[in-house]
Amino acid sequence: MTQQAKTGIRANKYFMGNTAKDVWTLTNEAAQVASKNEKNQGRPILNLGQGFFSYSPPKFAIEQTVSALNVPLNNQYSPTRGRPSLLKSLTDFYSPIYGETLTDSNVTVTTGANEGILSCLVGLLNLGDEVIVFEPFFDQYISNIEIPGGKVRYVPLVAPKELSERVTTGAEWKIDFDILKDTINEKTKCIILNTPHNPIGKVFTREELTQLGEICVKNNIYIISDEVYEHLYFGEEFTRIATLSKEIGDLTLSVGSAGKSFAATGWRIGWVVSRNAELLSYVSKAHTRICFSSPSPFQEACAHSIEIGLQNGYFENMREEYKQKFAILTGVFDELALPYTEPDGTYFVCVDFSKVKIPVDYPFPEELDDKAKDFKLSYWLVNELGVVAIPPTEFYIKEHEKAAENLLRFAVCKDDEYLKESVERLRLLKNYL
Amino acid sequence: MTQQAKTGIRANKYFMGNTAKDVWTLTNEAAQVASKNEKNQGRPILNLGQGFFSYSPPKFAIEQTVSALNVPLNNQYSPTRGRPSLLKSLTDFYSPIYGETLTDSNVTVTTGANEGILSCLVGLLNLGDEVIVFEPFFDQYISNIEIPGGKVRYVPLVAPKELSERVTTGAEWKIDFDILKDTINEKTKCIILNTPHNPIGKVFTREELTQLGEICVKNNIYIISDEVYEHLYFGEEFTRIATLSKEIGDLTLSVGSAGKSFAATGWRIGWVVSRNAELLSYVSKAHTRICFSSPSPFQEACAHSIEIGLQNGYFENMREEYKQKFAILTGVFDELALPYTEPDGTYFVCVDFSKVKIPVDYPFPEELDDKAKDFKLSYWLVNELGVVAIPPTEFYIKEHEKAAENLLRFAVCKDDEYLKESVERLRLLKNYL
Repeated sequence: MTQQAKTGIRANKYFMGNTAKDVWTLTNEAAQVASKNEKNQGRPILNLGQGFFSYSPPKFAIEQTVSALNVPLNNQYSPTRGRPSLLKSLTDFYSPIYGETLTDSNVTVTTGANEGILSCLVGLLNLGDEVIVFEPFFDQYISNIEIPGGKVRYVPLVAPKELSERVTTGAEWKIDFDILKDTINEKTKCIILNTPHNPIGKVFTREELTQLGEICVKNNIYIISDEVYEHLYFGEEFTRIATLSKEIGDLTLSVGSAGKSFAATGWRIGWVVSRNAELLSYVSKAHTRICFSSPSPFQEACAHSIEIGLQNGYFENMREEYKQKFAILTGVFDELALPYTEPDGTYFVCVDFSKVKIPVDYPFPEELDDKAKDFKLSYWLVNELGVVAIPPTEFYIKEHEKAAENLLRFAVCKDDEYLKESVERLRLLKNYL
Repeated sequence: MTQQAKTGIRANKYFMGNTAKDVWTLTNEAAQVASKNEKNQGRPILNLGQGFFSYSPPKFAIEQTVSALNVPLNNQYSPTRGRPSLLKSLTDFYSPIYGETLTDSNVTVTTGANEGILSCLVGLLNLGDEVIVFEPFFDQYISNIEIPGGKVRYVPLVAPKELSERVTTGAEWKIDFDILKDTINEKTKCIILNTPHNPIGKVFTREELTQLGEICVKNNIYIISDEVYEHLYFGEEFTRIATLSKEIGDLTLSVGSAGKSFAATGWRIGWVVSRNAELLSYVSKAHTRICFSSPSPFQEACAHSIEIGLQNGYFENMREEYKQKFAILTGVFDELALPYTEPDGTYFVCVDFSKVKIPVDYPFPEELDDKAKDFKLSYWLVNELGVVAIPPTEFYIKEHEKAAENLLRFAVCKDDEYLKESVERLRLLKNYL
C-alpha cells in the first residue's frame, strides 16, 4: 500500500518516495535519545558528527554583527544579488586569486552555500539534463539536482586499496577518468566538484583539475566547484579549477561559505563566484526566486570580517589550529591502530572501524534495518561511548555502499578540550578490538 | 535569434525566457539612477516602494539577537524544522487561535515566508499540477509555482467599479466565485490565498473564507494561506481560514513572517503552521533540501520577541501606529482628490493616478517600452518628485494589466517624519492635475 493510499495526502512524489530521514536529522535525533540511556548518565554526548563548531565565531565577526544590527536599514531586505559591502569584499579577495579584476557581476550572495549550489542547478538545468557527481558525494547535491528535474550520474573517486590496513591520504583517492569519459554524453550539463573534499579530505591537485577542466571544455560541461573549505587546506597550495585557463573559468561556478570560514554555520551566508558574468546571472535569477535575498546583518558582518581576517592572519591561524585539532583526535586512532584518511583539507577525518567488534545481537532500532553497517557503528558508538560520528555510506549510492561500510566520519571543528574529552572516550574502543 | 544562439549559454529555459528584471530590482535600480538627476539634487529619494521598514526592529528584538549571538551554539546550524525555542513560541501563540494544542510537528520554520511558500509548493506539486492564485497576486507566487513544474491558473479579485472615482475599501474587492468554480478541475492541487492582501489591503471576511474553504474541501484542494500581515489588520477581527473547520484546517498551510511582524525583513525568518502534521511534513522535507536550516541567532531572537511582544502590547501598538501612518499619507491624496484603496490590513495603499497628467514625450528608458502605464508613472514619480512607488500591474498577467495601469502602490512602513516629508513632495502633484 502506498503512502498516498494510506493517508490520502497527495504530495510531491519525489518526497513521498524518499521517506528516509536525512542523515543529519537521523544522527542528531539518535544522539538526543542516546543521551538518556544508562551508559550516558552523568556525561554529555560529544558530537563529532555534523560539521558545526562547538565554539563561537571569532570575536571580530560577532562585533561586526552587533554593529550592523544598530543601523536600521541593515535589518531590511538586501539587494537580491547581495549587499554592496559584501560584493566588494569578495571581489577584492578573489580578484588577485583569479588574476583579473572581478566586478559585482562576478559574484552573487546566497543563503548559505547549500542554497548557492541549488541556485546553480535551478538556474541551469532543464528536465532530463544529467549532472555528474563524484562518489562519495555530499548528500544534499542529490536532491539539489533532482528537485529541478536533473538526473544524477555517479563517477567514483577510487579509494586506496589499503584503506583498512594503514593510514592513507586524500591524495590517494583518484578520479576514474575512464568511467568519467564513458559517463559523459550529450545530456551531460554539469559536473559537481568538491575540493577540499568532504568527507575524504582530498585536495585535488593542479594536474587532476587540469585534466578534468579540459574534459569539461571539450564537452562544454559546466563545473560547479564546491569550495566551501577553501581556507582549510594543509599542504602548500589550494588550486581552484576556475583559475586554470580562461576556457575552464568560463564554464565554472565556484561556491564559498561564510559559515565554514567564520565558524558560523547558523548564519546562512554563502556565495557563488564566476569569471563568466552571464552564466552567473542565471544563478542570481534562480536565487531571487528561491530565497529572494539573504540575511542582511550577517552579510554586513561577513563583508567586514573578510577584510579583518585577511589583515589579522585569521585564516592562516585557523589552518594551524586545525592541524593541531587533527593531531589531537588522530592520536587515539594511532594508539588503537585504527587506520584513517589523513586529511589534506576540510575538518573531517574518516576512520576505518573494521577491527572494532560490536555485539551482533545489539538492539538496533528498526529504522536502521535497511542501512549499511556504518549506520549501526554510528548508533552503537553514541549509545556506548556517547560520541557522535556520521556514517559515510550516506555519501554513496546503495550499490556502492560496501566501499564505506566500515568507515565513520569525525568532525574536528570543536574546541581542544572537547576533542581531548572525545579522545578519552574513544580510547575505550580498545575493549572492543 | 535566441539568447542561447547569441551567447552559447545553455541555462534553464524558464529563466532564459524570463529575462525581465523583477519589479523590486527594477524599481530600486531606477531609484538609484534617479537619485543622481538634476531634480533630485540636494534631496534624498524617499522610498515608499518595496515593503521594507525605514526604522529598526523593536529594541527588545535587537537585544535578544545580541544575547543570542553570545552563546556559541546559537551561531551554528539549527534543526532543519526550527529551533525548539521558536517552535515553542509559535505553538504557544497559535494554539489558542486554532483552538487546539498544537505541537512542534504542527510548525516548521523557513528562511523567510518566501521560502516558506516555495517549500509548500515544492513539497506538494508534481509536474502539471495546477495552482489557483487570485489576481492581483504577489509576483513571487508565480515563479514559486512554476519552478517545481506547476501551472498557474488565475481567478480575479474583482475591483469596485468606482476605483478611479472615489476612495474604496479592500472589502469592495470580491472573489469571482463563478470563475473560481469554472477554473477548478481534476488537476487543481492548491489555492494560494493572501489575507491581509498585498497590494489591495483586503482582509477576507469569515463568510468569504467559509465559502472558499468549503469549495476546497469539496474538491480536495490544499490551501496555502499567506498570512504574513497577520498582525496588521485594522478592523474588529482577522479570520484565519485554517480555523473555520477541522476539514478546512486539514487542507491548510498557513504562512507567517518575522520580517513583517518585527520590522526585520532582512532577518529571513518565516514559518508554516498546519493542524495537519503529515501535510506539513512535506513542506519540512522540501525546506530541508532547499535551505537546509534557517538563520539561528534570529530564530532565537524571534522566539523571545514573540513572547515579549505578546506581553508588552507590541502588536496592538503596531496596529495603532499604522492607522496613524496611513492617516498621514492618505491625507495628501484626500487634498489632491486622488482616489485610493483604504486598507483594512497590510501596510500598503494603492492610489489611482488617472487624473495625474505626465508629459507624453517624457524620456522613458527602453526597458519600460513593453511595460504598462503604471511603470511609467512610477519612473516619472521618482525622477520628478524623488518618491518611489511600485507599479502594481506586476501583480497582474499581461492580458489583465489594464485593470491596474493607473494605480501605484505606496508602503507606509516608514517613520512618521519620513512619511510627512513624502507628503510634502507628493503635494507637488497638484501641478500635474
